[in-house]
Amino acid sequence: MFFASDNTGPVHPKIIEALSAANTGYAMPYGADALMDKVRGQIREVFEAPQAVVYLVSTGTAANSLILATLAQPWETIFCSPISHINEDECNAPEFFTGGTKLTLVGAPNAKINADKLRRKIEAEETRGVHGPQRGPLSITQVTERGTVYSVGEITALCEIAKSYGMATHLDGARFANALVALGCTPAEMTWKAGIDAVSFGGTKNGCMGVEAVIFFDPKHAWEFELRRKRGAHLPSKNRFLAAQMSAYLTDGLWLECARAANAATARLTSGLKQMQGTSFLHEPEANIIFAGWPRAGHQRLHEAGAQYYVIEGELEGDDPDEILTARLVCDWSATDENIDRFLALVRG
Amino acid sequence: MFFASDNTGPVHPKIIEALSAANTGYAMPYGADALMDKVRGQIREVFEAPQAVVYLVSTGTAANSLILATLAQPWETIFCSPISHINEDECNAPEFFTGGTKLTLVGAPNAKINADKLRRKIEAEETRGVHGPQRGPLSITQVTERGTVYSVGEITALCEIAKSYGMATHLDGARFANALVALGCTPAEMTWKAGIDAVSFGGTKNGCMGVEAVIFFDPKHAWEFELRRKRGAHLPSKNRFLAAQMSAYLTDGLWLECARAANAATARLTSGLKQMQGTSFLHEPEANIIFAGWPRAGHQRLHEAGAQYYVIEGELEGDDPDEILTARLVCDWSATDENIDRFLALVRG
Amino acid sequence: MFFASDNTGPVHPKIIEALSAANTGYAMPYGADALMDKVRGQIREVFEAPQAVVYLVSTGTAANSLILATLAQPWETIFCSPISHINEDECNAPEFFTGGTKLTLVGAPNAKINADKLRRKIEAEETRGVHGPQRGPLSITQVTERGTVYSVGEITALCEIAKSYGMATHLDGARFANALVALGCTPAEMTWKAGIDAVSFGGTKNGCMGVEAVIFFDPKHAWEFELRRKRGAHLPSKNRFLAAQMSAYLTDGLWLECARAANAATARLTSGLKQMQGTSFLHEPEANIIFAGWPRAGHQRLHEAGAQYYVIEGELEGDDPDEILTARLVCDWSATDENIDRFLALVRG
Amino acid sequence: MFFASDNTGPVHPKIIEALSAANTGYAMPYGADALMDKVRGQIREVFEAPQAVVYLVSTGTAANSLILATLAQPWETIFCSPISHINEDECNAPEFFTGGTKLTLVGAPNAKINADKLRRKIEAEETRGVHGPQRGPLSITQVTERGTVYSVGEITALCEIAKSYGMATHLDGARFANALVALGCTPAEMTWKAGIDAVSFGGTKNGCMGVEAVIFFDPKHAWEFELRRKRGAHLPSKNRFLAAQMSAYLTDGLWLECARAANAATARLTSGLKQMQGTSFLHEPEANIIFAGWPRAGHQRLHEAGAQYYVIEGELEGDDPDEILTARLVCDWSATDENIDRFLALVRG
Repeated sequence: MFFASDNTGPVHPKIIEALSAANTGYAMPYGADALMDKVRGQIREVFEAPQAVVYLVSTGTAANSLILATLAQPWETIFCSPISHINEDECNAPEFFTGGTKLTLVGAPNAKINADKLRRKIEAEETRGVHGPQRGPLSITQVTERGTVYSVGEITALCEIAKSYGMATHLDGARFANALVALGCTPAEMTWKAGIDAVSFGGTKNGCMGVEAVIFFDPKHAWEFELRRKRGAHLPSKNRFLAAQMSAYLTDGLWLECARAANAATARLTSGLKQMQGTSFLHEPEANIIFAGWPRAGHQRLHEAGAQYYVIEGELEGDDPDEILTARLVCDWSATDENIDRFLALVRG
Repeated sequence: MFFASDNTGPVHPKIIEALSAANTGYAMPYGADALMDKVRGQIREVFEAPQAVVYLVSTGTAANSLILATLAQPWETIFCSPISHINEDECNAPEFFTGGTKLTLVGAPNAKINADKLRRKIEAEETRGVHGPQRGPLSITQVTERGTVYSVGEITALCEIAKSYGMATHLDGARFANALVALGCTPAEMTWKAGIDAVSFGGTKNGCMGVEAVIFFDPKHAWEFELRRKRGAHLPSKNRFLAAQMSAYLTDGLWLECARAANAATARLTSGLKQMQGTSFLHEPEANIIFAGWPRAGHQRLHEAGAQYYVIEGELEGDDPDEILTARLVCDWSATDENIDRFLALVRG
Repeated sequence: MFFASDNTGPVHPKIIEALSAANTGYAMPYGADALMDKVRGQIREVFEAPQAVVYLVSTGTAANSLILATLAQPWETIFCSPISHINEDECNAPEFFTGGTKLTLVGAPNAKINADKLRRKIEAEETRGVHGPQRGPLSITQVTERGTVYSVGEITALCEIAKSYGMATHLDGARFANALVALGCTPAEMTWKAGIDAVSFGGTKNGCMGVEAVIFFDPKHAWEFELRRKRGAHLPSKNRFLAAQMSAYLTDGLWLECARAANAATARLTSGLKQMQGTSFLHEPEANIIFAGWPRAGHQRLHEAGAQYYVIEGELEGDDPDEILTARLVCDWSATDENIDRFLALVRG
Repeated sequence: MFFASDNTGPVHPKIIEALSAANTGYAMPYGADALMDKVRGQIREVFEAPQAVVYLVSTGTAANSLILATLAQPWETIFCSPISHINEDECNAPEFFTGGTKLTLVGAPNAKINADKLRRKIEAEETRGVHGPQRGPLSITQVTERGTVYSVGEITALCEIAKSYGMATHLDGARFANALVALGCTPAEMTWKAGIDAVSFGGTKNGCMGVEAVIFFDPKHAWEFELRRKRGAHLPSKNRFLAAQMSAYLTDGLWLECARAANAATARLTSGLKQMQGTSFLHEPEANIIFAGWPRAGHQRLHEAGAQYYVIEGELEGDDPDEILTARLVCDWSATDENIDRFLALVRG
């Protein structure tokens, strides 16, 4: 009963197999390997973007920070949600890689950046000439950090606003696949057709061992990105083992299969929780993350039974068994019906 | 016949097995996994350093840059060899991670920093008060980038000089194991007993897939390093798969076994080349790298036969078959006698 | 009728005289001059702080950024008001000098940071271990950017909160003197006795040509600050001409005299505006800045007559003569009753 | 007898007068003042460069660092002399402002960068693809830090080499005027006609109080430079007082007059020293700096008499009265024949 994160579960066996299969003799280092050529082709095909440039890095923070550093000047400000990973969970990595860019936090009810608020925040910058920060890129997260999913229309609307101010756009897709299967659209529709310039395309949270793809739809960013990646110490010598993961992930729809499994498990868990009295949801779960509250007694039973997840509001210790504590529950591809049902039984008591 | 680098060869099968074995169910992320505990214990034991703090990163540039950023202030200068990896091959990553530290290049005949020159360069800094850069750490590479190996006495002498000026010391041990088996000393003798404060302990070039350990012998650096690593986007979520590699590497002497194999292959190749007339060596090979020259005709035969290595002086194309071109040849753990002998036969013609 | 800023007016004649007087023969550069010794003594006396270390720089942004870089680590976040100069008017200079520190904006009704909100924002950081930014210094502005003044009790309360979390404290005193004469307290009471660690002590906006003092009450910051100042290119060779300004400023109470004149002029202007119907104030002016609104017709008359000030809400062009537009009015030491009365007459129409 | 530096002497009276004259009423801040318009016109005229963009900063380190940050990317390396101010005397300011650019030191016999060595150093970079630093701008100093002066031909030759590699070029002209009058050429000939892209045009060492002009001959750099200057805290609010200095400096040839006086004083001192037995010169003095040696006894007499200058080789204390110690002597515009002759008499004994 591990629902703490989608980065604690096992790697999909096909990913492990791919590493083993890639380990045949010699291969050129630093991305000059044949498997990397294959990955480039796969991503261009999946995204219907034959001009796209593609790189692999080993962490999501690296993908985000290196993309933002390529798109932003140090005297600019990046528009993002207050609860975005780049604001809350990267220990100032975006500020470090960009050389001191500011983040302008845009109100995000339901965890999604609001278009009107975005426009107001953009308008409020560049009102002081050289004295204030200049407008930099927009960064949005899909699936959001609260488990909601932007519709294609919503992404399009935000990008249109950004573009009308000449701003670049970034999609933090650490859970790209979970959003895609939730929306039932194509990768192209969710990105460049909607106005996105660069994507952090996550693999690690969805069955890979440690690989994220960086995608720029405009190849003009290629060489600068390569220099920034190397300077950031994120150019792996044995790149073929990142490529092997990503290639297997994109082969025969494994990435979609894993995401569907994670979302289905989340739906089962959501459905079970909804059937219980006294359960409340912070946001309607749309992909593989749930923020839900139920009485303390249920949490206590779960923790005694070894369930792992974060209580984000309220203290597990406490006398009132009926007080509602809010949990964050995440399912990955490996979540089983058995564990979910056992979890639900324990909540119920 | 791949002698271009020790980062192009296959991963040792035991490392792949270890990844597979680590893929059992859930594990805490970010270094809180049980395998990481094991690695900390193994490294402390191998280094006879029970207080040491240990971290894993996926590239050697990350290990070097993050250590140097922890040891150096941005207004300082790092003393290193002109041909050090941190100067030549990291695209200003040390300058980036330190926030703008300078590198002071110290003459390094035979690729090893000369003690007298080090002292003179240190003396030449801090002669201008606040106007000039301040003295920062000493960084040395073992095995050097030219295939030579510092003796324990040489390391001790350089560290003594550094310590007499209050400077910290770093060992870039991308090929730590190759040096260790060449010297026949203990890891403690080659590091903290000789005055080294922090080590980049390489795995990737010696049979691993992509893992380097960072070791500080003084635990006071722990928290700052952890923050710098996260901010540098080098904290992997699924850390257990770095730990699995490093743990297997240190189990049953696999790391020493791989290094001995690489050094033995290099010795066989060296010996063969020495027997040929007209072969000259830039430096006497002491570990797993050779810089040697022989006539163009031999190089041409080799390249036609598909041999891979860098010609670092001279042009492969050219009319004079007798002109001496210098090659850089590197052997890893997987080099076979058969390939070496085939290579030597081709040189001979 | 220049009320656009307190950095557009003339320099006090005594400051010019002091420059001339300092221009006698040779003087040691870089702060080793006798006048700088005098300044150190004067500031220590004025602040009743014999241990304080004192430096001069030529801009307020330099004073703020260099102090914050000395007090904050790059993985920390600085707590400040959304309308603080360091957030809005320094083009990311604090982020640049600190190496990428974040700013956490704390609600500031009446432009003063609210103690409860500060506590909540501090509590909300460091909840994610190594993943989130760490708590850095508190920075407050006195006089605030909206013309209000923190009481000594308010500063003390904010500093107590900061100290209870081990955080350092900075006072941006670009208008230090204006606040001091408004409160009628001593410099020590408004700073170190209230818990402030470092002060940007402004001269430029109050009659000087271009000089700000940096004051650390704990001398442990001295050497790091000196290196950061030099590395930031803010160490003037002919320092005596900064020292001459600051010394004259502190001699015979010139600094207090200038501030009293500016505040009195502001009070006269405020009083006149209050007597008019339809005038509203964003905040009660407490020092030398007014945010007030009155009908468009008055603004139009003023601009036609050559008055200089910023309309911060509303557009000067427009048809409705009765619409209220908000102005920002600033008085410096040189504002005359005549100009103020002429201004008021024009508002009235 | 002050020969320690050209930043310790008095400011020319006309500069002080200009400050006083500029102090009339109100003036727009941040460079929007009428005096700044005048300065732009003067510099464009003096340099025969009607398109040039011109900015003022208060230190030479600021001028150099901000220009280099505008011309260089952080993954590049700047080619300069080992004894250049940017390498030795700016406490890593160039590395700070550029975000971590490296400096590649090019052999400089007679303190002037050697063309062949420059070409070799440039060729030695960009040999490692993404792994090594990329070629950045060339920076040369005129007058050099050893008192020699590049001929127009020499500057042209170095710039041609740089341009042939697509590199930008910077002239650190802290002593621009001293070089110009030594060469007898025009400012245009010494800069853009010779291939220079950007100039640090010094005023401080030649009679001003603290002002340097930044000149880019291509206006495309304007906005980026303005943002970098503000972000570096080098945009003065009361800019008119920098402009007043620079304008007076350029009026009626004051800048040339001061430089001629300084060079003439240096020539008188050089000539006197040459007439003495046992005096040796490190370099032939060509502008206003002398590096010369004479016996210890002479130095001791001078120091007892209160002469101020640096002994850069050898120790003043010591028994042997005949040992040669090398001094660095700098003359500014205010050096008098009387003092020089008194100095020479003391050397002679």
